[in-house]
Amino acid sequence: MNIELIAIGDELLNGLIADKNARWLAEFLFKKGILLKKITMLRDEEEILKETFKKTFENNDFTIVTGGLGPTQDDVTKAILGEVFGGPQEENKKAIELVGQQYLKLNREWNRESNCYHMIPSGIEPVKNPIGLAPGLHFQQNGKHILCAPGVPREFYGMFEEEIYPLIQSHTNFPKKSLKQVMVRTKGVPEEEIFYTKCPNLWKDLSQYGQVASLPQLLGIDILVKFYVKDENEFIEKEKAIREIINESKIAENVWSWDESPLEDLIIKEANEKGLTISLAESCTGGMSSDRLTNVSGASKSFLASFVTYSNDIKIKTLNVKKETLEKFGAVSLECAKEMAAGARNFSGSDVAISYTGIAGPTGGSAEKPVGTVAIGWATKNENSSKIYNFKGSRELLKTRFSEAGLLILHELLRDIT
Amino acid sequence: MNIELIAIGDELLNGLIADKNARWLAEFLFKKGILLKKITMLRDEEEILKETFKKTFENNDFTIVTGGLGPTQDDVTKAILGEVFGGPQEENKKAIELVGQQYLKLNREWNRESNCYHMIPSGIEPVKNPIGLAPGLHFQQNGKHILCAPGVPREFYGMFEEEIYPLIQSHTNFPKKSLKQVMVRTKGVPEEEIFYTKCPNLWKDLSQYGQVASLPQLLGIDILVKFYVKDENEFIEKEKAIREIINESKIAENVWSWDESPLEDLIIKEANEKGLTISLAESCTGGMSSDRLTNVSGASKSFLASFVTYSNDIKIKTLNVKKETLEKFGAVSLECAKEMAAGARNFSGSDVAISYTGIAGPTGGSAEKPVGTVAIGWATKNENSSKIYNFKGSRELLKTRFSEAGLLILHELLRDIT
Repeated sequence: MNIELIAIGDELLNGLIADKNARWLAEFLFKKGILLKKITMLRDEEEILKETFKKTFENNDFTIVTGGLGPTQDDVTKAILGEVFGGPQEENKKAIELVGQQYLKLNREWNRESNCYHMIPSGIEPVKNPIGLAPGLHFQQNGKHILCAPGVPREFYGMFEEEIYPLIQSHTNFPKKSLKQVMVRTKGVPEEEIFYTKCPNLWKDLSQYGQVASLPQLLGIDILVKFYVKDENEFIEKEKAIREIINESKIAENVWSWDESPLEDLIIKEANEKGLTISLAESCTGGMSSDRLTNVSGASKSFLASFVTYSNDIKIKTLNVKKETLEKFGAVSLECAKEMAAGARNFSGSDVAISYTGIAGPTGGSAEKPVGTVAIGWATKNENSSKIYNFKGSRELLKTRFSEAGLLILHELLRDIT
Repeated sequence: MNIELIAIGDELLNGLIADKNARWLAEFLFKKGILLKKITMLRDEEEILKETFKKTFENNDFTIVTGGLGPTQDDVTKAILGEVFGGPQEENKKAIELVGQQYLKLNREWNRESNCYHMIPSGIEPVKNPIGLAPGLHFQQNGKHILCAPGVPREFYGMFEEEIYPLIQSHTNFPKKSLKQVMVRTKGVPEEEIFYTKCPNLWKDLSQYGQVASLPQLLGIDILVKFYVKDENEFIEKEKAIREIINESKIAENVWSWDESPLEDLIIKEANEKGLTISLAESCTGGMSSDRLTNVSGASKSFLASFVTYSNDIKIKTLNVKKETLEKFGAVSLECAKEMAAGARNFSGSDVAISYTGIAGPTGGSAEKPVGTVAIGWATKNENSSKIYNFKGSRELLKTRFSEAGLLILHELLRDIT
């Protein structure tokens, strides 16, 4: 099946907002075994849009369009779809019903003239918007479909899941084989060292089982093998073979997970299953690690607190860091990180605590402690220690790398506690 | 000038990673007065890439390609560029020099065979990678250019800023007029109410001065007017006229800023200029507000601490929330939010404190306090109060909306303190 996405909006091409729908759709379809062929982002320019709609519709089974369905004058999708595939806009009973229901649900009054959501080009079907107000649009001819959905991410996600995907399913014969993948995640070894120095045959060996990809992450390399299987048994066999290749290779010691879930999900899962509690002391990461962990539903079972102690006074007052430690070694030091972790653990009563103190820049660095230096501490019942890292990057990237390094330690600590 | 971006990588089309380069490039060019025409994301598939390279090169002055320059077998960009525009790959002196310098800088040894970064198709020029190892590629013919850069965001940003953009500048006559924009940011009024109920002529009135766009944000609508000017005076005049239109309209009271900087930047700027300090007490936002504020360079001057008190015990212990308050009203209550803000302010000694306590879901909601309920508190020298909001969305979206609502209050408080 051929399926393409066209995302419309000057704001995307001017960098005013980041598109979230493309990635979401790509991931959603991939998990269903469908490969998205192409993503195109275009300005609100009629002629180019008309031409692209026509051509993409011709070349694909499904063309998904996002954006341009709102009530303002820069929203041109409906008019263009009408011009290319339908007739003049007219009152549409189904649209009146669908939009009316949404207004009722939101307890708001619908002034039809204010948005003309009830007007749909003839020959085109409205599609229910389960989240927002503007209905989607659907045109089909000779087994080819074009579907327009709102650009607002949660409206797009809702409409795609509840309306468009079932429609795709009902119009296609899905392949009997389904697409699967095995991901192995490594740390502490650069990409070229994996494939050329340590394991020169690894790529070839893995390629026997599927399409191999190497994905550099924040602090390591994820290696992915994708393949089609006809049943669960075939998947189990292939996965086993891939694991054997990795486990017998020279990067076996660099593997930190076979689970492709986000690191924060793995941490909360591990902690919740073992009944362990977590606290953090964050200085340079500014709450990023805490934000990440609390994105996981169920985090409240194990995550107790994060103390974002940006000022030294608060480090002393909350985390019981010694004034002498700060004076003698500075806030960015092994000693301070160690005390911060112990302080967070004691204050919160958690089983495990991780601390961060570093320099995210762009200012504040020195010859001895340049921007990118971070001390990460940890404290458990049996251990209180710390480690210094040096990373490169912008302020935001450094915060992300610092956060990742600490969460990798937290993950390992939780896994090792029995 | 016509400029397009082609981003390459199965991982983008499978939703494994979110592309960051497209938005960055769009924003970078927009600020320089250049409009990016189109963004295309494609899989690592040779035939489609060859065809797209040829066509995009033909139709544009500059084609920017990201991704596929790494050392592994799924990195096909160099080979394809060679096949379409150049000759066979050969040792390239400039590449050897450029890559050699980077290895020296990173203090690593270069085994050339491990990545073949020294091999460049004949007729194609290597481009310096100021951040990473893989050099970029540049081909030009008849005033048309194709430039390939790495997909790793910080390498792409660095190469584009330091190498590709200067090259674009040197090959183009920039328009004497430059692209400017005025943005007015509103809250508390839905998009259709602005343009149809309250100010039916607003769109037309603003359109006299440039191209109007309406951008729904997390908790409000930003209205943007873009126009070309020949000098600063023309900009000042147009901006003044736009401001007058808005200030005399019925949405004047909904305007919260004319500055398009991120809300967190505006907060830190306001606090730093006034010498005011900030602390937060975050429960349901889990550190997101703190993370956002500390993304701003210079935040350490005014941002003291955030207490991410996920558990009730920690709320009591750190923020001095009364046990009776939690028992009588629950953690998600006006009373608790008020005490949390006061507690954060007292404990940290900050001038202003904001607190969040709510239900981000997907579980934990009740009929009385459904998922999406948040109580936001604030404390200053003269005031200690709180407010309840109800939002809709997924867990992450709710955290973001909660965070935004509290930061809008913080921004207003800081602005009102004289």
